[in-house]
Amino acid sequence: MALDFEKLIAHLKAQGFIFQGSEIYGGLANSWDYGPLGAELKYKLKNQWWNFFVRRNKYNIGIDTSIILNTNVWKASGHLGNFNDPLIDCKNCKSRFRADKLIEEKFPNVNAGTFSNEELENYIKKNNIKCPKCNEITFTNIRQFDLMFKTFQGPIEDDTAKVYLRPETAQGIFVQYKNTQRSLRKKLPFGVGQIGKSFRNEITPGNFIFRTREFEQMELEFFFSPNDKYNWFDHWLNEVNEFLMNELKINKNNYVIREHDKDELSHYSNKTVDIEYNFPFGRGELWGIAHRSNFDLSQHQKFSGEDLSYLDPETNEKYIPNVIEPSVGVERLMLALLCDVFYEEKINENDTRTILKLPIKLAPFLVAVLPLQKKQSSFSINLFENLLKNFDATYDETGNIGKRYRRQDAIGTPFCITVDFDTELDNSVTIRDRDTMNQDRVAIKDINLYLYNKINN
Amino acid sequence: MALDFEKLIAHLKAQGFIFQGSEIYGGLANSWDYGPLGAELKYKLKNQWWNFFVRRNKYNIGIDTSIILNTNVWKASGHLGNFNDPLIDCKNCKSRFRADKLIEEKFPNVNAGTFSNEELENYIKKNNIKCPKCNEITFTNIRQFDLMFKTFQGPIEDDTAKVYLRPETAQGIFVQYKNTQRSLRKKLPFGVGQIGKSFRNEITPGNFIFRTREFEQMELEFFFSPNDKYNWFDHWLNEVNEFLMNELKINKNNYVIREHDKDELSHYSNKTVDIEYNFPFGRGELWGIAHRSNFDLSQHQKFSGEDLSYLDPETNEKYIPNVIEPSVGVERLMLALLCDVFYEEKINENDTRTILKLPIKLAPFLVAVLPLQKKQSSFSINLFENLLKNFDATYDETGNIGKRYRRQDAIGTPFCITVDFDTELDNSVTIRDRDTMNQDRVAIKDINLYLYNKINN
Repeated sequence: MALDFEKLIAHLKAQGFIFQGSEIYGGLANSWDYGPLGAELKYKLKNQWWNFFVRRNKYNIGIDTSIILNTNVWKASGHLGNFNDPLIDCKNCKSRFRADKLIEEKFPNVNAGTFSNEELENYIKKNNIKCPKCNEITFTNIRQFDLMFKTFQGPIEDDTAKVYLRPETAQGIFVQYKNTQRSLRKKLPFGVGQIGKSFRNEITPGNFIFRTREFEQMELEFFFSPNDKYNWFDHWLNEVNEFLMNELKINKNNYVIREHDKDELSHYSNKTVDIEYNFPFGRGELWGIAHRSNFDLSQHQKFSGEDLSYLDPETNEKYIPNVIEPSVGVERLMLALLCDVFYEEKINENDTRTILKLPIKLAPFLVAVLPLQKKQSSFSINLFENLLKNFDATYDETGNIGKRYRRQDAIGTPFCITVDFDTELDNSVTIRDRDTMNQDRVAIKDINLYLYNKINN
Repeated sequence: MALDFEKLIAHLKAQGFIFQGSEIYGGLANSWDYGPLGAELKYKLKNQWWNFFVRRNKYNIGIDTSIILNTNVWKASGHLGNFNDPLIDCKNCKSRFRADKLIEEKFPNVNAGTFSNEELENYIKKNNIKCPKCNEITFTNIRQFDLMFKTFQGPIEDDTAKVYLRPETAQGIFVQYKNTQRSLRKKLPFGVGQIGKSFRNEITPGNFIFRTREFEQMELEFFFSPNDKYNWFDHWLNEVNEFLMNELKINKNNYVIREHDKDELSHYSNKTVDIEYNFPFGRGELWGIAHRSNFDLSQHQKFSGEDLSYLDPETNEKYIPNVIEPSVGVERLMLALLCDVFYEEKINENDTRTILKLPIKLAPFLVAVLPLQKKQSSFSINLFENLLKNFDATYDETGNIGKRYRRQDAIGTPFCITVDFDTELDNSVTIRDRDTMNQDRVAIKDINLYLYNKINN
């Protein structure tokens, strides 16, 4: 069944996952806030990544660098001057477009992202591309637009005070590569992971939380010797694939692995692979795995004057390590996950339920406690408060039990505990499974064990 | 023993906790990055807060709102226009100072933070306060300096595109109060917690990570009925105190609880208490607990035109809830914790060890695996990789065993597992306790249980 994207967005808002940013003030373009359930899901998703790629990985360690860096970092990385979009305005209706996207929308098989500005302008003229808004052909020349958010640090707004919000977390890892390697006496190969906010002043953000100006990244920079013949690229591609399939349980039919053509590659990369997810609005980049050669460290060595080479303790050789970078956006990954687990399930002729089949470890709440009737409230609240010591639990006593099951299905709670008439007699409760809707009768003293077994299965 | 602050800072850098931001480029004023151990400690500290104040608390839920909000939010909150420092320049040497701090440094008993600009200027003149740099008395008038970082969203840098980086996470909670309350059908009293970056363009940042322009906050806004007679202020003050004492195990002799005098209070607050920690550079605010009345929600109702009142389901009364706000900075709390656990311990006449007595749950690594000799390497690596599936483990085979113990003490690792000559014979290892330096002989099959027991004790 094709996913109704508008329905999913409405569902996520109503259930407290994702709200429009600054909504009471009419919003702020392309800004989204994460409500209680979205915040918890995001938190768990990040934790899962951190565990898999940093904490539980024998090669890797983590880092947490600043959003605002010394401006020379962006000169070295090539972001200052290069990191910008080719913009074109319609002289008639004043609409603004990205020139490459304007071409690609009309000619989907053309890869205009690789064109120079001159080539873009010529292509638009030659093919008589019209303004999609007003249908006129009166475009301005292309102007470059700086994608980095700029601000001023300190009391005076002059050029020396100008700083930028990072457009990626990766550069913080490269800038602290030497400190990191030295303080932990790390030997190659090793990786450094980071989770954090980045900012890109995109001209055409959109598709809900897929592309936003403020977003969060999870990046790993994996350093290895140029003499190392092991295929680290495939190693990390496999790890990413395993994370998607086994940790997030994303249906592997819903994404493809696509290698960049030669003309798509950055000049410093000899291989890049995108994992693309089939979003409701089309196929979109989810996770990029790039071979960055030794480009970044070499640039920082050149611009900073610091020696960033590695002295190989075995060969006594000095070199700048190579880098493989698997990079993913938190919100994008969360969107793919939500698209993957959102179902409308027909139970019988008259009954449909909306359900988020989230993996147990990612569900905002693991378990809900539901007294069948008001008279079981105080007993149930007590049970809820006890469960809360060890589990992410919630409590609901409003409405009939069927409605309450539906409510928990809708937010992805894997287990519902019902306290009923017999509970006081047999010291047992009913535990309902979200996906199968099967019910188990479980003694109160065994509830913790029952849940632990489900989590660890 | 008085803590040597410079020694602690050097220690934290050498061990991979905290590096100067953008260090290879000569740094960026007052910017700090968290190395692998600092990142992990920060991660665990935030997780502990989130568990205590959000996940495991029966009243509270979490949220995750944007750093860049609609600019009207800051008009309503009073940050635009009010949130700024009174600056004064020395005409002779061009040094810049905060006028209130200039007075307080000379007259420590004067509370100049409550003075108007006119009062500040008069006080400086009347008392002939000199420039601390050049000793002249030729000050300019006071200029207000906007503490919010400003930037532009979208391609054009004009007033309509001007946006700000949030100076606190709290307003995001207030702006989404209605969505949050409604989507989860929350009844008063309930709280909403948030962890996230904030930015303040401070004129006089300093004292290492105590006051930085880019920092992370953990804030809770607790909403309750104006008819509710329970003392929620003391409730949350007690919770904060319990968190410091029992979760972080901070020595209670190292901090004081100080209530604000009437003239220190914000106009909307009828009670504010600061928890102040005895930092090496003096006593400094660690955690603020403020009664914010219904100020914020009332302001947002006024400026947004949205009805932010709560309809009490029991009394059918409509009102805007009151708010208690416990607010703490992540870096500041981490600094207090590090000051609290940093010891130089004399073991005997010739031997001293540097030790971080971090609580078990906060230590970057729980356990280190150390083969006594190279010949135990492959066995030890295997053990390390097995432990890593369940615990934060590290591995070290470089240098003599005494040096390796010292290294783990220095980064706060609670347990060191030594694989020795007998391990292959008796299938046992030695586990050394960081604090007591006592050693237990433990069968390999019992290591996991041994560690779980230590964690949960």
